[in-house]
Amino acid sequence: MGLNAVYHYALIPSGKLLRPLLLVRSALTVGGDLFRVLPAAVGIECVHVGSLMHDDIIDQDSTRRGRPAVHAMFGHEQAIVAGNALYFSWFAGLAECLRRGIPSDRIAHAMAVQADSGIEVCRGAFDELTMTGDLKRPVEDYLEMAARKTGALLEAACRVGALLGGGDDSTVDLLGAFGYHLGIAFQIRDDLLPYNTVTAEGMGKPGDSDLRNHRPTLPVLLAYQRANTADRDAICHALLDDADPQAAFGTMYALLETNGALAAARAMADQFAQRARKVLIELPPGPQIGPLSEMTHLTGIGRVTPAHADNRTPTMPTPHLPVPTAERA
Amino acid sequence: MGLNAVYHYALIPSGKLLRPLLLVRSALTVGGDLFRVLPAAVGIECVHVGSLMHDDIIDQDSTRRGRPAVHAMFGHEQAIVAGNALYFSWFAGLAECLRRGIPSDRIAHAMAVQADSGIEVCRGAFDELTMTGDLKRPVEDYLEMAARKTGALLEAACRVGALLGGGDDSTVDLLGAFGYHLGIAFQIRDDLLPYNTVTAEGMGKPGDSDLRNHRPTLPVLLAYQRANTADRDAICHALLDDADPQAAFGTMYALLETNGALAAARAMADQFAQRARKVLIELPPGPQIGPLSEMTHLTGIGRVTPAHADNRTPTMPTPHLPVPTAERA
Repeated sequence: MGLNAVYHYALIPSGKLLRPLLLVRSALTVGGDLFRVLPAAVGIECVHVGSLMHDDIIDQDSTRRGRPAVHAMFGHEQAIVAGNALYFSWFAGLAECLRRGIPSDRIAHAMAVQADSGIEVCRGAFDELTMTGDLKRPVEDYLEMAARKTGALLEAACRVGALLGGGDDSTVDLLGAFGYHLGIAFQIRDDLLPYNTVTAEGMGKPGDSDLRNHRPTLPVLLAYQRANTADRDAICHALLDDADPQAAFGTMYALLETNGALAAARAMADQFAQRARKVLIELPPGPQIGPLSEMTHLTGIGRVTPAHADNRTPTMPTPHLPVPTAERA
Repeated sequence: MGLNAVYHYALIPSGKLLRPLLLVRSALTVGGDLFRVLPAAVGIECVHVGSLMHDDIIDQDSTRRGRPAVHAMFGHEQAIVAGNALYFSWFAGLAECLRRGIPSDRIAHAMAVQADSGIEVCRGAFDELTMTGDLKRPVEDYLEMAARKTGALLEAACRVGALLGGGDDSTVDLLGAFGYHLGIAFQIRDDLLPYNTVTAEGMGKPGDSDLRNHRPTLPVLLAYQRANTADRDAICHALLDDADPQAAFGTMYALLETNGALAAARAMADQFAQRARKVLIELPPGPQIGPLSEMTHLTGIGRVTPAHADNRTPTMPTPHLPVPTAERA
């Protein structure tokens, strides 16, 4: 059983291919050639899947998309090593784009974006570990973590696509900002998944993973901030309870629903999705703008049902936002 | 405690800096500029240290260079994530070389070398896991694993240095071949360390790690091939014994010493070191050739003491060698 078998198992069947789609659509937006950029799209799916494999080890999640997680299927050590190989495959994808005729200055800049973004993703994952069990963290800390952990990679997908497609600096920046805001929206939506049973089943993500790992996700942090002392104790107990995760989840869900934290988190996800759509308006019109805009809905972010869109939403302060990763080159 | 603290702990104080030295000397060999290539040298130390961090998790080694291993100091999850960040820092080093004025076609080719080499290293680490406990593997399997796990990265150090320094294709290939053979020699020497107490203490590597992890290293495989049935049983028992690792190590050492496997492994390391030195003869003379040649001795490979250079050595068949990674670009 070699490394190739792990690659095959981990990559096929694929997930939603959000990052490859972003990369290809960004490239096409600036007039890029599909054949030439496609290996970079495969590459970004590789790094994403590699990070999921490591996440599943860290979070002790034994299933992914309704199947055994890679570490459950092949072993922990094998999943660590294969995840690492998938990180390098991200850059091997760029190398293949070079062979397919993308100019080397574009390749070199795309590599710089990927390297910075990869480090940011790790920084976000590290930040998330330091936040474990800490309900007193401000929402800004959460947003910075989400911007790194998820925003940076979606930003890189768009930037790399635009760079390889031959886009000018301002278009690369705009598409990068689109991916960045979409990424934060996507991370918030991911936090909400366990509280939305229908979607959670579709994802195959164990509903209790965040709670089991004592992660103060956005709805939990918002609920804690809004709660009175008795409810704060209850939230704290539900987050840290290892004895009965299912009961803890039930308690947490009831608390989050009744004090409006779920609605507030949905509204924040919607804010970021709107920012992403707003960036698209600044781009020249073209056939990719509609599909890109549609992606902000496909993630389920924009669809706040009337029941959730309560009167708290308009009074929410605009969160203080981290700035998108500047391309340093 | 953030990611930067882990970087600091893991990188400083440094080890022998073999890979950065190879990279810089290769660059200087072809007339490269030290200031411009230095970030790539830092980068290759980053990826090396990241891989050691993951190795220590996989091998459950709690010390490294006489200090607590990163996972013992900061936690397993933190060590996985920080190791990943260090992999991306390898490419961030190349991005800094771009900013320092190295032409983008050189950067793009160096990236392709790094990506291929990174995947090879993972493939070697994966192969090593599949070999666990298997004494019947031919020496060729071991050599292929060592070529990937260690040869590929030392080859990349030399290739990237030569590429960034502006070397022509044939010089890049020659320096790559030098690093490749040196890497295999180095891996064999690493296998021998536990059986050479003086050096083992200097490394801080726990002497029983390979045995504890049931790794059929080169001397163990050679001993098994040379042994009679009774000794094979003893070798097998010593390799797989979890009850008393210290006693198992003592038994294994005695078996390896008496049947000449240690001497044979030392001789093979020496063969590879000699091949590395032979490559250097083909390079144009210059001030770096001497120090590069000296590095094949500094690793302790070439120093076969008379006691070990027994009469088995000349009769050893030349091992069938894997071919150095061809640069595909």
